[in-house]
Amino acid sequence: MAPRKGNIMTVRDDVKVLDATVRDGGLCNNFEFTDEFVTELYKTNIKSGVDYMEFGYRASKKLFDPKRYGKWKFCDEEDIRSIVGDNISDMKISVMADVGRCDFKEDFVPKSESVIDMVRVACYINQIPAAVEMINYFNNLGYETCCNIMAISQADTEQIDEALEMIGKSKADVIYLVDSYGSLYPETAGRLAKKYLETGEKYGKLIGFHAHNNQNLAFANTIETLSYGVSYLDATASSMGRGAGNCAMELLLGFLKNPKYNLYSLLTFLEKYMLPLKESGVVWGYDIQYMLTGQLNRHPREAMAFTAEKRTDYCEFYKSLLDNF
Amino acid sequence: MAPRKGNIMTVRDDVKVLDATVRDGGLCNNFEFTDEFVTELYKTNIKSGVDYMEFGYRASKKLFDPKRYGKWKFCDEEDIRSIVGDNISDMKISVMADVGRCDFKEDFVPKSESVIDMVRVACYINQIPAAVEMINYFNNLGYETCCNIMAISQADTEQIDEALEMIGKSKADVIYLVDSYGSLYPETAGRLAKKYLETGEKYGKLIGFHAHNNQNLAFANTIETLSYGVSYLDATASSMGRGAGNCAMELLLGFLKNPKYNLYSLLTFLEKYMLPLKESGVVWGYDIQYMLTGQLNRHPREAMAFTAEKRTDYCEFYKSLLDNF
Repeated sequence: MAPRKGNIMTVRDDVKVLDATVRDGGLCNNFEFTDEFVTELYKTNIKSGVDYMEFGYRASKKLFDPKRYGKWKFCDEEDIRSIVGDNISDMKISVMADVGRCDFKEDFVPKSESVIDMVRVACYINQIPAAVEMINYFNNLGYETCCNIMAISQADTEQIDEALEMIGKSKADVIYLVDSYGSLYPETAGRLAKKYLETGEKYGKLIGFHAHNNQNLAFANTIETLSYGVSYLDATASSMGRGAGNCAMELLLGFLKNPKYNLYSLLTFLEKYMLPLKESGVVWGYDIQYMLTGQLNRHPREAMAFTAEKRTDYCEFYKSLLDNF
Repeated sequence: MAPRKGNIMTVRDDVKVLDATVRDGGLCNNFEFTDEFVTELYKTNIKSGVDYMEFGYRASKKLFDPKRYGKWKFCDEEDIRSIVGDNISDMKISVMADVGRCDFKEDFVPKSESVIDMVRVACYINQIPAAVEMINYFNNLGYETCCNIMAISQADTEQIDEALEMIGKSKADVIYLVDSYGSLYPETAGRLAKKYLETGEKYGKLIGFHAHNNQNLAFANTIETLSYGVSYLDATASSMGRGAGNCAMELLLGFLKNPKYNLYSLLTFLEKYMLPLKESGVVWGYDIQYMLTGQLNRHPREAMAFTAEKRTDYCEFYKSLLDNF
């Protein structure tokens, strides 16, 4: 294993924390956050020292009917500006664009006209050429760009090597390791991070990590990959995110030693906004069914259905997963 | 860091899983489990391949009034036998004896007359001589013995070195690293485990790890220390245990590669017994207040009081913790 970069007592200036609450959390409530929620989260993130706030997806309105989703699935410029004005803060703003699910040539204005700083291109490992096309397009528009390769725990090692070479040669600023299924362990996440970091060093890219909490390892995997040199760290308030959720922002900010990060505002936000959201019936977070799909390195879709049906027959569910391998 | 022992795909025959649900979980419900619960847990552990089941404490009846606690605070021989008979299974039975809180010379019969296999002696680092006296006494009676040094995250490195030498020279079979405050990170837990493992190699002892989940790292720390050679792993059903709870048995058994371990019975037990226990109002598990005491390397007592009062003013709580450093 590569040596650790920095140590548990010190600050690394390359570290950037990205709040993905509205984007990944939006998958739990159809992106239907109140403006008050998003505004208060924006203010909280600024006070907490968060480096990037992701407002949502910029999805195609041809493929997805805007009447059927909250506005953060589309992240229109005017909707972001209604929250942040011209965003005079030091915190940067990102949106996510999925390969094959956005009209990137129509829906993005040049960075000079946009309040967005960074576009994160999400793809599966078989979509790298399409991702590279988008990344280079956004780079030419003036945006910072990331390539988030999803579901990496199901990809083959040789495929990953090739994908990293292709993205290495693109104009991406950051390459993200994404544990979509929450099936990585710190040891395996660390090993993959090392591979990404080698590409990063070769091509001058920074590396990011996006965790899911299926096996209660989102925070552990985040700080493990951080320790080897990963710089961009995704987290969400109360770990809100699809299925088992993500790395909790409160755990991450409590761990990082840079004094710019602090917990006070976030703790108040958790009480005033995240507890009521949970009480209102929005469901996310670690649970047995997500643990099982994580252990089996599977997409959480069956676990999400199990959750939606309020089932608790874990053993039957487990047997059904094993039947469908 | 020491090299990892074995790898993530293989079986290590030195690994032993200990179920501490009734003992550490008993701290959440005053040890008032029904006989049905304990009997079903016993059967479940056997079917799951668990190596040891801890039935509780053997506390002094002079110091603790038996009328005010459930019977598993005392673990009388006849009470254990009423569940397990002569325990004809391969699973071994343990009880915990706290230094200074048990009458060990009066309350233990020789192993040949007992259904108990192992006595785990729990102590703080300033109580090692008393622990060694008890360990040697239990060894002479014929029991396997552990020394569980609690609250290790607050102990000084030189103290730990000296304590390990003293226990190394005792008759203890196993030395446990205990993260009572849930404040270790995988990196720090791994570093401590390495120190324990060096003593273990020197004196022929095995090493154990007991986690708490304050920072959602109980499972991560358990498998991290395991990877360096720790053999005895504590876990509890649904992570039931004081405050933020322990390493979840279901996470651990799902991770271990030895085919003797399996999840089927445990998943049924979780549905039939752990969910109703939670619904009945017994409270444990990861929550913001425990995260904060873990981050600050503090005893969880203030967080337990905050929980009991059903408070959610996390920011005020955090400020009060910082006031009392």
